[in-house]
This record gives sequence, structure tokens and C-alpha cells, in this order.
Amino acid sequence: MSDVSGLLDSIKLDKKSKIPMYIQLYNILKEMILQGTLLPDFQLPSVRQFRDLLQINQVTVVSALKLLENEGYVYKKQGSGTFVSRSIPAAYNNASADVNPISDELYQQDDVFLISNGQIKVGPDTVNFASATPTPDLFPVEDFRKVLDEVLERDRGNAFGYQDSQGFYPIRESILGILRKSNITATPESIQIISGAQQGIDIISKALLAQGDYVVTESPTYTGALAVFKSRGAHIVDIEMLEDGPDLDIFEYNIKKYRPKLVYSIPSFQNPTGYSYSNNKRREIIDLSVKYDFYILEDDYVSDLDFEGRNYLPLKAIDTHDRVIFIKSFSKIFMPGLRLGFMIVPYKLTNIILQAKHTTDISTSGLIQRAFDLYIRKGYWDKHFKFMFNIYKERYFKINQALDSYLPASVKFSRPGGGLNIWLSLPYGFPIETLIRQAASEDIVFAPGRIFYSSPHVQKLDNIRLSFASVYIEQIEDGIKKLCDMISRLQSSKIENRRVPLL
Amino acid sequence: MSDVSGLLDSIKLDKKSKIPMYIQLYNILKEMILQGTLLPDFQLPSVRQFRDLLQINQVTVVSALKLLENEGYVYKKQGSGTFVSRSIPAAYNNASADVNPISDELYQQDDVFLISNGQIKVGPDTVNFASATPTPDLFPVEDFRKVLDEVLERDRGNAFGYQDSQGFYPIRESILGILRKSNITATPESIQIISGAQQGIDIISKALLAQGDYVVTESPTYTGALAVFKSRGAHIVDIEMLEDGPDLDIFEYNIKKYRPKLVYSIPSFQNPTGYSYSNNKRREIIDLSVKYDFYILEDDYVSDLDFEGRNYLPLKAIDTHDRVIFIKSFSKIFMPGLRLGFMIVPYKLTNIILQAKHTTDISTSGLIQRAFDLYIRKGYWDKHFKFMFNIYKERYFKINQALDSYLPASVKFSRPGGGLNIWLSLPYGFPIETLIRQAASEDIVFAPGRIFYSSPHVQKLDNIRLSFASVYIEQIEDGIKKLCDMISRLQSSKIENRRVPLL
Repeated sequence: MSDVSGLLDSIKLDKKSKIPMYIQLYNILKEMILQGTLLPDFQLPSVRQFRDLLQINQVTVVSALKLLENEGYVYKKQGSGTFVSRSIPAAYNNASADVNPISDELYQQDDVFLISNGQIKVGPDTVNFASATPTPDLFPVEDFRKVLDEVLERDRGNAFGYQDSQGFYPIRESILGILRKSNITATPESIQIISGAQQGIDIISKALLAQGDYVVTESPTYTGALAVFKSRGAHIVDIEMLEDGPDLDIFEYNIKKYRPKLVYSIPSFQNPTGYSYSNNKRREIIDLSVKYDFYILEDDYVSDLDFEGRNYLPLKAIDTHDRVIFIKSFSKIFMPGLRLGFMIVPYKLTNIILQAKHTTDISTSGLIQRAFDLYIRKGYWDKHFKFMFNIYKERYFKINQALDSYLPASVKFSRPGGGLNIWLSLPYGFPIETLIRQAASEDIVFAPGRIFYSSPHVQKLDNIRLSFASVYIEQIEDGIKKLCDMISRLQSSKIENRRVPLL
Repeated sequence: MSDVSGLLDSIKLDKKSKIPMYIQLYNILKEMILQGTLLPDFQLPSVRQFRDLLQINQVTVVSALKLLENEGYVYKKQGSGTFVSRSIPAAYNNASADVNPISDELYQQDDVFLISNGQIKVGPDTVNFASATPTPDLFPVEDFRKVLDEVLERDRGNAFGYQDSQGFYPIRESILGILRKSNITATPESIQIISGAQQGIDIISKALLAQGDYVVTESPTYTGALAVFKSRGAHIVDIEMLEDGPDLDIFEYNIKKYRPKLVYSIPSFQNPTGYSYSNNKRREIIDLSVKYDFYILEDDYVSDLDFEGRNYLPLKAIDTHDRVIFIKSFSKIFMPGLRLGFMIVPYKLTNIILQAKHTTDISTSGLIQRAFDLYIRKGYWDKHFKFMFNIYKERYFKINQALDSYLPASVKFSRPGGGLNIWLSLPYGFPIETLIRQAASEDIVFAPGRIFYSSPHVQKLDNIRLSFASVYIEQIEDGIKKLCDMISRLQSSKIENRRVPLL
């Protein structure tokens, strides 16, 4: 208790300041955590202690703690209090704080970052189950070069001028053809060109979210989206992703409770789980969006990689009330480095989203837009899509077959039916970090499941994600076999050494 | 008063909510303004009335009104109260509000948007003093095509893979050569590649600013930056830009009062005024940044277009304490549609800025980075810079000469010495909107000064900005003569019709 009052003595709030009290308290505690004054697992004073000793409102304390928790600085233990997190999110470091080395949180961003930062070493012989991005040898360099050349010949300097912020009009037309195959009808006026899906999420957040707003997401989910929402100061309400989509009763309960402006969803072959919403749940979530007046951000990650004929309907295709913002990147099928994607924007939102795009980077590269437009119009896109589809499909069946053959019975997974990821659920308490190290020593890499959760206190530790976008067909069987052998060995050594019974 | 209590009756605040009270009040009032329940020029209840009838803290009311004012929803009249603004900022429209047509505020974004949205019509014969962007006929299409081709030949698919979020390493090296000419020393590790200056401002805001933080800017200034700061929920403190930079006593007073995290500055040939900080003021502002612990975002707009040998030192060149974030786009000299620029980031900030870049769009197009790197290394950049410098320089002297010859004595301007803009100060009360219409009818366009202010209540109405990046040398004398004639005529008719004496 002397500790606590010492801590509370050092907190000075300015009641006359224009900065709200809860933000002041949040800032001071954050600073103490970042500077190491408060160490990991340190128990913070109780709400009551804060209230009485600082003479502030209880709501102020709760709001400040909630914000810290949402941003991952602290975690709660039911019934025992609030504690400083073990890993501090680098993204929210204060400018005045000292430099952190590339931290564990940064590494947790997503697979791209994970690799590009050397946290996972990928060499020429690596069996890469970590990356959900195609390898450069599959890129259609020659065809793209042809269209680039043709555009430069045709448009000259105009290819390099400022582009309309909404996007080059012809490509907004040519995209409609691609959409028709997914049963989505749209108009060029509803299309917004973006520099990749990540930018799309960022722009929508700018347009729709203010500090303190709520966003509902699946859990686990794409961490690049979580990072954006947190950076806007939004609170994240995460709902467990089941094999046929979230439990919609729990979903509705949370919608009623938090009244979110936005629901972020990857309904088909979700990242990281590979799970998909049933068509019933798709219809129901659309109905809920009308009933409770929220928008759904549908991240169409890889819905077109449907290898087993599941024929899921994109939410946008059944969205008769214009509640869905549909977002698609060309990265997974085409070339990630192009930085090109698009959104279909509900009519009511076109203006604010256009302005948010303008504020973000004025426009996407006109040269790239023009080249890609021609690439679609010349039929190269269709051709390349089929090429990639077949390559991924072959790998999909191969990896499923290998898992069926070699995976110990204690590890659970379900065939996703498509996409690029498979989600393995290992037994409770399995030493995944040891598995990562052992696999790396055999030049096999994959993504630990924990990186896909919105904060440490909801993190599950017993999953791994296997992706097959960057792994070659010849590597799959042997790679999976080795991995499964390691899992079996670790599991039995764990059982021998266990102190508590496994569940 | 019955009006007021009726209004206040309809405001329901939830004291148990986790959303701070001032944010709740702000949201409700904003909604009423957006939905037209509160009409333009409607006087809001006084702080006291709000306080007494809603039974809330006075600080809560003041905070909510301040936020509304900062975002342009309301304006204050000294001594008489707070009123609903006449033009509502589209950027902050709530998702649930109805669609606004492209509004005046959107048009006020900046010259690019102004033109790309057809608010200013630019035809083939237009004398375009509105745009500060080069025309496509000046773009080095052939040379760029050569390097594009060479890169595709050299790097194949790697040119299209995900790029390091900080940027392609070789271009971070080749940029150092360009910087050396501005007396700036840097390392590849301190360079962050961005998709244009606008994105740089957005990324820095994400990394450094939270809702309620203060940012100091010059006034008037680049509105694209203002839009970003507002979108982060930051408060803008604007300080008048004088011919040799802001008054540093006023500046320091505001720094002490608001303790901003960031100061946004365009120290050389500022946009829109063309004014530059004296070298003394440059040194002083750096000293202040150390004394008061803020960062300076130096937007190096066109400092290298120094036509009269002013030899200003970039802030970054004299920044011995690593307080300056230097940002540069290649748009004004090179090709705006490329979406390429860079920042020099202080060592302490490299990690958080890298993460903010990653959250924003993962990376800038690898193909464009690789091509531009080669463009620099082959000496094309130096060659093209000299070419553009000479073209702009010729126009600069021509427009100054024409203004010296034709401008009525009542209109003031000072030779900026460089850059792309000239700022005219017309007599108080001059009918600028009429001038815009008359000029447009003769196919002459320019930017009204009012669009460069952070909110309606600080807006000055008596300036125009003339840019010469998009106007041809042959058009300048005749265009300026016509414009000056119109100004003279409007001024004398105004004097005849005036009801109050001109100051």
C-alpha cells in the first residue's frame, strides 16, 4: 500500500487543463510504463485507490484503464486487478520515450513484416509456411511490362500527372467485369481506387471512426487492421471466429452493448483461420447491420480461391441496403509490390471516403492504375488468375493430404475449402515457441497464432497458421512431415515433464 | 430563451457511459448541425446555460465547444457567443448523416482537388495561375521509360514483391546525394520512403499525435496538412506568417501555452504566401524546439527553386539536436502522379514512424522506387532538375515583371525570391468572388486566399495566390495584365458603391 500511495503521489493531474482528465491519467500511466517506471506484471492500484487518493471521478479512472488495456499496455485478471503488460506495443510509444529496439509487438504485425524485418529468416531453401504472399517467380513480369510500355506510348506525360483521387475512370470500369464473377454489381461511381487493402482499412477508419468509437472484429484476425483501429483510438470488441463464422447471438449482444460504427469481417477463408461464414450467417449479419445501423467492412482477402466449390456469397452480393464496404487487394493473386486495390463504397459514404483518401495520399499512382487497367482489358488478368488458381489449388490439396497423413491426432484442424491458410489447434499448453525454434533450425518457418489477437489478454497461445502461398509444391510433403514429427516429439516430452495434467 | 431550453431538453448525456461527457456533447451538437436541426448562424446557448440546464461541468462545455470550433462547425464572436458555421466541413460528416454534395469545404482542400473536381475548369487555353503543379508536357517520360525498362530487365519479379516498409535500400542511399546539395547530411537508416509528402504528413501525425494534442502551424498554410491534423483530432494553433517568418515572441507564447508536440512549417517559399523565414528565425526556432521539447515537421516544398540567390538554410541542415523531421516530395519538380517522396526521421522516432508507415500502406511501390533510384544514379535527376529550374525561373521573373508593370498600387505583394507562388494582398473588402467569376469568364484561374486557413474564423478574405507552375511563359504577361485590369475596375466600382469607407 505504501508503494501504491508513492505511485499515486507522483501522478499530477491538471483539473484546469483542456485535456480531459482520463486522457491525462492515461498519458501519465502510459509514460510510466514506457519508461520502465512501472515494470511488467506490476499490479496497478485499484479503481477505488485511484479515485480516493487522486480525488477524481471513478469513471475517469475506468476510462483511462480501459484505454490502456485496449492498447495493450495493461491487462486485467478477473477478480484480482489490473497489471502492466509484458510486451509493450511499439506503435503507441510516445515521441519523448526512448528508442525501443524492433520489439516483439512490431514483429507481431503480420507475416510480411515478420519476414521483411528478419524476425523470420527466409533463405533460398526455406520451407516457408509463414508467408501468405506469392513468390516473385510467379509474377507476370513480361505481360505487365508490355502494358506499361503501351501506356507510356499512349498517354505520355499524362500517365504521371495527378490522378483523380477516386481513381482513373477507365480502371473503375474495367474492375466491374472482375466483380461480376463474384455476383457483385457496382458502378464506376461507387469504386474507390486504393494503394492496397491496408490503405483501404486506414481510409475507412479515418472516415468513420473517432477516438472512443467501437469496432467489432473477429478473433483472431488480420493484425494490420487491428493496428489501424487502435491507431484511431477506437476500442476493439473481438468475437471468436468459429468454423462457420462468429456466434451471432454473442455478436448481437455485443452490437447492442457497444453500438459499433463498424464491423470488420473477412467472411471467406478468413485470415488467419481459413474459416468461412455459412451463407445463413452472411444473410443474418447483413440484417443485423440494417437493424443496428452499422457498416460492415468486408475484407475480400481471397474469396475467389474457392478450391472445393463452396460458393460462398460475398456480403456485398447480398447487401441490398448498402451497408457493406467491400475491399479487395490484388496482392494475393497478382503482385503485392504494385500497391493496388479497390473498394466498393456505399453511396452515403462516397464523399467522406473520397476526402479521406485525398488526405491520405492524394491519389494512387496513375501509371500503375493505367497499366493495370490495360492489363485487365487485354485479358491478361483472367489468364493470370487461372494460372495462380491452379498453382494454389495444387498446393492446397497437397498440404491437406500431408496433414491428414502426418498430423498427430491431438492436433485439430478443419479443411477450409479454399484460401491460403490452415489453422492448427495444438493441445493446451503446447510449447509453441520451442517448436518455432526447432523448426527454424531445420529451415521451416510458420506464423504463431498469438500474433493475430487484438491484445495479450485475449491471446490464445495454442495455434499456428500454415500458409502455402510461398511454399513450393515439392517442399510441402517433406516440410509437413518434419513439422508433424517435431510436434509429436515435443508433445511426448511435454507429457513426460508435465507438472499439471493436460486438458 | 425558450428556444434554448427546448434545444437543451433534446440533449441527453449518459453520465455512466465510457465516452467522456465532452465528446458526447460534441457528438450530439455536431449531429444537430449536420442534420440541419441547428441552422447556420444559429446562436448556441451560453456555457452557463449549458452547464446549468444539463447539470454538467463548465469545462465539459468549453471542451466540447472548442472541439466544434476547431473542426469548423461553429465560430465564436468575441463578446457575443458561439454560432453555427455557414459552411460545414465535409471531412467530419458522420457516417449516418445524409450525403452532402461536393461541398465548398471539399473544394477548399487545395489546388489539385479544386481542379480535379471541376470546381475550377481548366481547358487547353486556360491561363492557369491556380495550380502549383507542373504540366505533363514537361515530364521526362522518355528517360523514365528507359529506367523502368532497365529495372524490369534487371530485377524481374523482385520489382513487384513487397518492399521493405522503410524503403528500397539503394534509393535511400541515392537520395543522400540530392540532400548534400542542400547541406544536409543523413544516413540511409534515417531515410523513410513515402508515397508523396501528403502521406508523410499523415504518417507523422499517426505516429506523434493523439486526439486533443496541439499542433502549431503557420497561417495561412497548406490545407492538406491541416486536414490531416484535424482528422487526428488535434487542435490547431495557427500563427501568422510574416514576410520573414512568424513573430517568434508570439510563437513562443503559444508554445508555452499549448505545449504542442509538433510544429508544422514550410520555411522556404512557403505555400501559399511564398514567404521565407530569415536565417536568424531558423536558428531561433530550432533553439525553441530544444527548449520546449517539440518536433518540427519541415515541409521542404520547393526550397531548391531559389531564383534570386537567397541561400536559406533548411532547418534540417542546422538541426544539431535531431528535432526536425524533414519531408520532401518529388511532385513539384518531377512527376506528381508517381507518388514518391521521402522523410529524414530523427533517430528517436524511426521505429514509431516505420510502424505508422506499415499501418498506412505497408510500403511504397517497389517498382517506382527502383526506377527512381536508377533515374538518380544515371544522372537523369540532375539533368531534369536543371531543366525545370530554368523554366520556372524564366516564369518567375516574367510574372514579377508583369506584376510590377500592371498591378494597381493598392494591391501589395513582395517578391518571394523563389518557389512557385506569389501572394497578393488586395484592399480590405475587395470582392474577390466577383474577380474569380470575371476571370473565369476570360479563362483565367487562380486560388482564392481564404482556402488556406485552418477555420472560417481566422480566414482572411483579401488575398489571392498566383502560381506559375502550370502557366506557359507566353500567357503570363497578357494574363497578368487582364487580371490587373479587372482588379482596377472592380476596385473603382467598389469605391463608387461603397457604404463604409475602405481602410
